[in-house]
Amino acid sequence: MPRFKAETLEEISEKIFISYGAPAERARLVSKFLVKANLCGHDSHGVIRVIQYVKAIEEGYLKPDAKIDIIRETETSALLRGNRGFGQVVAKRAMELAIEKARKKTVSVVCAFDLYHMGRLADYTMLAAENDMIGISMVNSAPSVAPYGGIERLLSTAPISYAFPTGKENMFVLDISTSMCAEGKVRVSLHKGEKLPEGFIIDKNGNPSTNPKDFYEGGTILPLGGDLVGYKGFGLGLTVEVMAGILSNDKCAYEAGKKGNGVFFEVININDFIPIERFRKRIDALIRRIKSSKLRAGFKEILIPGEPEIRRERVNREKGIYIPERTWNEIVEIAKRKNIDINAFIDEALSK
Amino acid sequence: MPRFKAETLEEISEKIFISYGAPAERARLVSKFLVKANLCGHDSHGVIRVIQYVKAIEEGYLKPDAKIDIIRETETSALLRGNRGFGQVVAKRAMELAIEKARKKTVSVVCAFDLYHMGRLADYTMLAAENDMIGISMVNSAPSVAPYGGIERLLSTAPISYAFPTGKENMFVLDISTSMCAEGKVRVSLHKGEKLPEGFIIDKNGNPSTNPKDFYEGGTILPLGGDLVGYKGFGLGLTVEVMAGILSNDKCAYEAGKKGNGVFFEVININDFIPIERFRKRIDALIRRIKSSKLRAGFKEILIPGEPEIRRERVNREKGIYIPERTWNEIVEIAKRKNIDINAFIDEALSK
Repeated sequence: MPRFKAETLEEISEKIFISYGAPAERARLVSKFLVKANLCGHDSHGVIRVIQYVKAIEEGYLKPDAKIDIIRETETSALLRGNRGFGQVVAKRAMELAIEKARKKTVSVVCAFDLYHMGRLADYTMLAAENDMIGISMVNSAPSVAPYGGIERLLSTAPISYAFPTGKENMFVLDISTSMCAEGKVRVSLHKGEKLPEGFIIDKNGNPSTNPKDFYEGGTILPLGGDLVGYKGFGLGLTVEVMAGILSNDKCAYEAGKKGNGVFFEVININDFIPIERFRKRIDALIRRIKSSKLRAGFKEILIPGEPEIRRERVNREKGIYIPERTWNEIVEIAKRKNIDINAFIDEALSK
Repeated sequence: MPRFKAETLEEISEKIFISYGAPAERARLVSKFLVKANLCGHDSHGVIRVIQYVKAIEEGYLKPDAKIDIIRETETSALLRGNRGFGQVVAKRAMELAIEKARKKTVSVVCAFDLYHMGRLADYTMLAAENDMIGISMVNSAPSVAPYGGIERLLSTAPISYAFPTGKENMFVLDISTSMCAEGKVRVSLHKGEKLPEGFIIDKNGNPSTNPKDFYEGGTILPLGGDLVGYKGFGLGLTVEVMAGILSNDKCAYEAGKKGNGVFFEVININDFIPIERFRKRIDALIRRIKSSKLRAGFKEILIPGEPEIRRERVNREKGIYIPERTWNEIVEIAKRKNIDINAFIDEALSK
């Protein structure tokens, strides 16, 4: 099982994107975010996407050197058109703009449309938290989720992210889909030949299923809350569609030809409400009290949103990132086509 | 079973609050919002609260004529201190301020602290939607929910609300707790002697329970997502604590002496992103497509957030609002103490 240093994967990915026409800085940014996902344990958003992105470039959909246009702008808001550029590039630009505006005007909303896949939301909301602000994001994408009571794919997994600065505690970073699970989870179960927990998906006829294959044969993921209170997850998912698919000027999940992400970003400058040092102390105290709760049987500890990722990253930086053989072979194949000498990387990787 | 016209209940409630020192305009506002909750089918937030509010006034906690202070303010934000005034009065003022600021500056956040119970979030977010804007609210309150993996009451039911203007379709108004259910639901089950669905609560030892009594004997409500994916609801609930309990300068649910609501309001002026008429058309199209989904067995239709309340209100306006005997008797008792002649109301009510 090949394990790689994060830097190695970043370099390989970077070289591939450059060979496909991406400016060096963009190739580096996209690669960094993809590898960051692997580091955090979210392999579905990791370097496996290099294969998909390259295909999208070859098909002429993804434009690695696209210009980013600001369509509308006020002191507190902006609407960006990505012109089918890398989602990571457009989204980072959008979040930086939002941070800049919130620094001056307390609150800001920046939306973006017509961009490709942008990866994990946490990467962007954390930028705000690193600047002593609250970062908020909602993103929609292609449809995979049924409305509560329905059996058609009409909503996306519609993730929401919030990131908050802390004092001594780990940063509080929530990044969750508003469905029972992300599509990546279904795919991983399929590849591993495992069953899904009950309540995650239904088959094309609306019958409960634990077989991930049923999802890919016309089934759907259920909204967060499942049979019992799925109207809550459905309501949140529909909210994301409106914020990230309509307000953003992008497409809704159900609309024909929906590709990439519609993006809603918001930033709030904490210091204009309460002093940031007081905020840090109080969020630390909240986290500590929550973590000190008496536990239910079967639980070893209470994890704050963002903690599992921090721990996984520590391990993966130390031990290297495991990339499945098949994914690795496809990446090597792409590199070969572009005459990228991958041997140096491979040697270094395998010696790890 | 006494049924009452909405206007009758409003008048009685109004007279009671005035007799307890509330300025007429405030008494009217609070009464209107309480009766609105009854109309919408959320009796736990209805006139039953008159009894609780009167008690809070008698105890000297709730100040019916409290001044509202603006502690901090920017062009796009404000922080309000309610000085233990009626939550409805403080919250409506906060939302109106947010709407005014968003009209001028596209986006606004207004937080409020030190206020009493404010009722349903939807009442405030809808004000924004009625003004062609997006209304957002998060509110915390006393603790009743356990963190994912814990068995202590450390979080509130932490509701979130979003309201969006539409064109021909009903207004899309989401107003949900981020726990498996609101506390009102547990109380209703207790009073009716019914069991709760599995997965809503655990008893004081962390064992699953369907007996609402177990909640009132030290048990807790579980976060949205339950055993399977309760970390999602937990993450959302914790987010609400930070936004409505810390950024707002209020208390977190776990802190001693937490009473009333901490409030986070946000308003976004749609027209600064896309023309409002285009927004209306697209949200209408989204709603229609979702509602036309093929249905799962056991479902008759797909309801958009806010629809059940609109339907219930239509029925209750027509047939009157049912108030349980015990609640009614307690309200009559309060009126008598204040020499309010309730007979005219009662006759009118019962003749309905």
